[in-house]
Amino acid sequence: MLIVQKFGGSSVADAEKVRRVAGIIAESYDAGHDMVVVLSAQGDTTDDLLDKAAEINPRPSKRELDMLLSTGEQISIALMAMCLEKMHYPVVSLTGWQIGMRTNSQYGNARIYSISTERIRAELDKRRIVIIAGFQGVNKMEDVTTLGRGGSDTTAVAIAAALHADRCQIFTDVEGVYTADPRKVPGARKLDEITYDEMLELASMGAQVLHNRSVEMAKRYGVNLEVLSSYVRKPGTKVKEVVKQMEEMKISGIAKDHNVARLAVVGVPDEPGRAFRIFRALANKKINVDIILQSYGKNNTNDVSFTVAEDDMEEAKETLLEAQEAIGFDHIDVTTDVCKVSIVGAGMVRSSGIAATMFEALSDAKINIQMISTSEIKVSVLIKDVYADLAVKAIHQKFFGA
Amino acid sequence: MLIVQKFGGSSVADAEKVRRVAGIIAESYDAGHDMVVVLSAQGDTTDDLLDKAAEINPRPSKRELDMLLSTGEQISIALMAMCLEKMHYPVVSLTGWQIGMRTNSQYGNARIYSISTERIRAELDKRRIVIIAGFQGVNKMEDVTTLGRGGSDTTAVAIAAALHADRCQIFTDVEGVYTADPRKVPGARKLDEITYDEMLELASMGAQVLHNRSVEMAKRYGVNLEVLSSYVRKPGTKVKEVVKQMEEMKISGIAKDHNVARLAVVGVPDEPGRAFRIFRALANKKINVDIILQSYGKNNTNDVSFTVAEDDMEEAKETLLEAQEAIGFDHIDVTTDVCKVSIVGAGMVRSSGIAATMFEALSDAKINIQMISTSEIKVSVLIKDVYADLAVKAIHQKFFGA
Repeated sequence: MLIVQKFGGSSVADAEKVRRVAGIIAESYDAGHDMVVVLSAQGDTTDDLLDKAAEINPRPSKRELDMLLSTGEQISIALMAMCLEKMHYPVVSLTGWQIGMRTNSQYGNARIYSISTERIRAELDKRRIVIIAGFQGVNKMEDVTTLGRGGSDTTAVAIAAALHADRCQIFTDVEGVYTADPRKVPGARKLDEITYDEMLELASMGAQVLHNRSVEMAKRYGVNLEVLSSYVRKPGTKVKEVVKQMEEMKISGIAKDHNVARLAVVGVPDEPGRAFRIFRALANKKINVDIILQSYGKNNTNDVSFTVAEDDMEEAKETLLEAQEAIGFDHIDVTTDVCKVSIVGAGMVRSSGIAATMFEALSDAKINIQMISTSEIKVSVLIKDVYADLAVKAIHQKFFGA
Repeated sequence: MLIVQKFGGSSVADAEKVRRVAGIIAESYDAGHDMVVVLSAQGDTTDDLLDKAAEINPRPSKRELDMLLSTGEQISIALMAMCLEKMHYPVVSLTGWQIGMRTNSQYGNARIYSISTERIRAELDKRRIVIIAGFQGVNKMEDVTTLGRGGSDTTAVAIAAALHADRCQIFTDVEGVYTADPRKVPGARKLDEITYDEMLELASMGAQVLHNRSVEMAKRYGVNLEVLSSYVRKPGTKVKEVVKQMEEMKISGIAKDHNVARLAVVGVPDEPGRAFRIFRALANKKINVDIILQSYGKNNTNDVSFTVAEDDMEEAKETLLEAQEAIGFDHIDVTTDVCKVSIVGAGMVRSSGIAATMFEALSDAKINIQMISTSEIKVSVLIKDVYADLAVKAIHQKFFGA
């Protein structure tokens, strides 16, 4: 098997941790696999480099910042290679430019165009363990770029896709993907499998095990992802297209998202196109709107409520006030003490009563539902944020019995 | 003018020093010059990286060590570029691989094959200051190599040669090349000019202002070198083919070398080929022999004395003892309490009495000369090492009157 493994910065933070990770890599190699390993910069390296930069120039160009920061991963891969050398394994470290990781020129947040697999293949043919610097590439001028948030996960998935790897293992500090946050819900269960879409829904709701970008790429290229722990040696959660127990297990997980605000546009004339004007104005400012609710108000008007990320709340409000005349509303109410709780499951669409079960759980717990939104694999409700943890526990109890 | 400037690790050790160097670069740019700047790794960076490596693997492969160490210069150039950005200068940093610095595959001590000047020229055409990582290149596999001792000086000279630069300025912590070590000889004078050959003789004798490798390359390609201070803004010493005041100034400098041992092979039969066998045996072990003296010993035998670097002394002795039967000597005497003092000057060959003046100075100071060696531009003597500083002072006084 050809396996791509990815380890984050905290997993290789010091010599001791580098040795533990080297042990994991060696174990897979000894099992006869072809090994490609993607690493992030060690623990605080990136912060240290940013401090050095800030002392000289608080607002450096992104090109020079990428030139600086990309050294962090290069240090990681050299040290890991040295560690495996000490254990007498054949190994070679490679930077982003050495594997022809081509990106666009958006320094600090570059998108991957292509990877030339030639060098990696040649090293694998020599039975070497290949250690690759994550997070970095080069643009068409051969200038160093970095990939931004989730960049090393994305590097690993892109390499797995380019090499048609049998598996892409993302090692983290959790044991896999859970039905709910295990720190909050004692009965939370680790999932053996989950679909890409479910993972995407969970990831976008703050269960930050994998960055969405890497999951999207894995889905597009059909990469067999696995999330597992660098500390506990046992199977993690597999992310794939079709999940075995999809039919039995109605939902895969429960997540909550506190980064949400509710805006109510009150007194919108009940005429065609009024609601459209609201959402066009917000779209022009690139503000994403999530749950939408329209209800009848007084005097032949409607109230239009919707949620946005809390960070966008002020801008959304200003944008609408600027367009008040065109839209013709009376005023805007804003609340931030709300939270979105969602259940996610690919089997949901073929299984009636899932949403009803969720609502029942909330009703039993005497939690009022403010708004509802459903999709093929997700049901979300907006509730008062003080009830968030209680709601997650109640729903988990209802579906999983613990 | 196209000027290449090189700054060592101590010149860019911290933010404050980076700013000072940026000031020097900016001044030259403001004067209308095209600027290419070569930097070493910041102060202790290399040692810090070596410590990290040692913790994981005390004997890493040289390939991975080069991968690790080359990040040091990359950090330097990014920070310097950020500093010049802050001062509103157009600037770009480039690594060894980005300028196509091709080397052989001798990791840790690679030799330069070629530089592709395309990228540097393109950046200069945009009127950008080009900041280049010294000390590093890539081999034919695109693997990172480092150039070893004096690597950044050599990078600067190689780039100056490739670009046909008008001047290559090596900034150091001294103000130039002196007639003697100014810390030891108060009357030591800074030289305005010196020839490549004189510089080579001085460098090889421990006046470590410039590494020999860079001077040899400068000589081969006719690069106009200048050694000057990063701290004091005034002209340094120019190193070139022909020096103006060569005829007046009989000697250019005085140097001493403590890394020397004297071996006396006592009782070698006075037959043809005996001495040859001694030096053949040493040459086979790649031991360089410097001053040689043959003298008559007892009973129709000769004593053959010579000097080697102190580091080679043990091996030289062992080598000769192994060949004792073939050579036929009686025994070997070894002394390490010796020092070589030399005067260097291109005008020497056309000027009689230079050696005599030196010997007179030593005689006046009551210093006994053990061995003598002369070349076209150098006279060296071996003396007891406790008299080294006294000898340099006495000779300096005799030639320079101070």
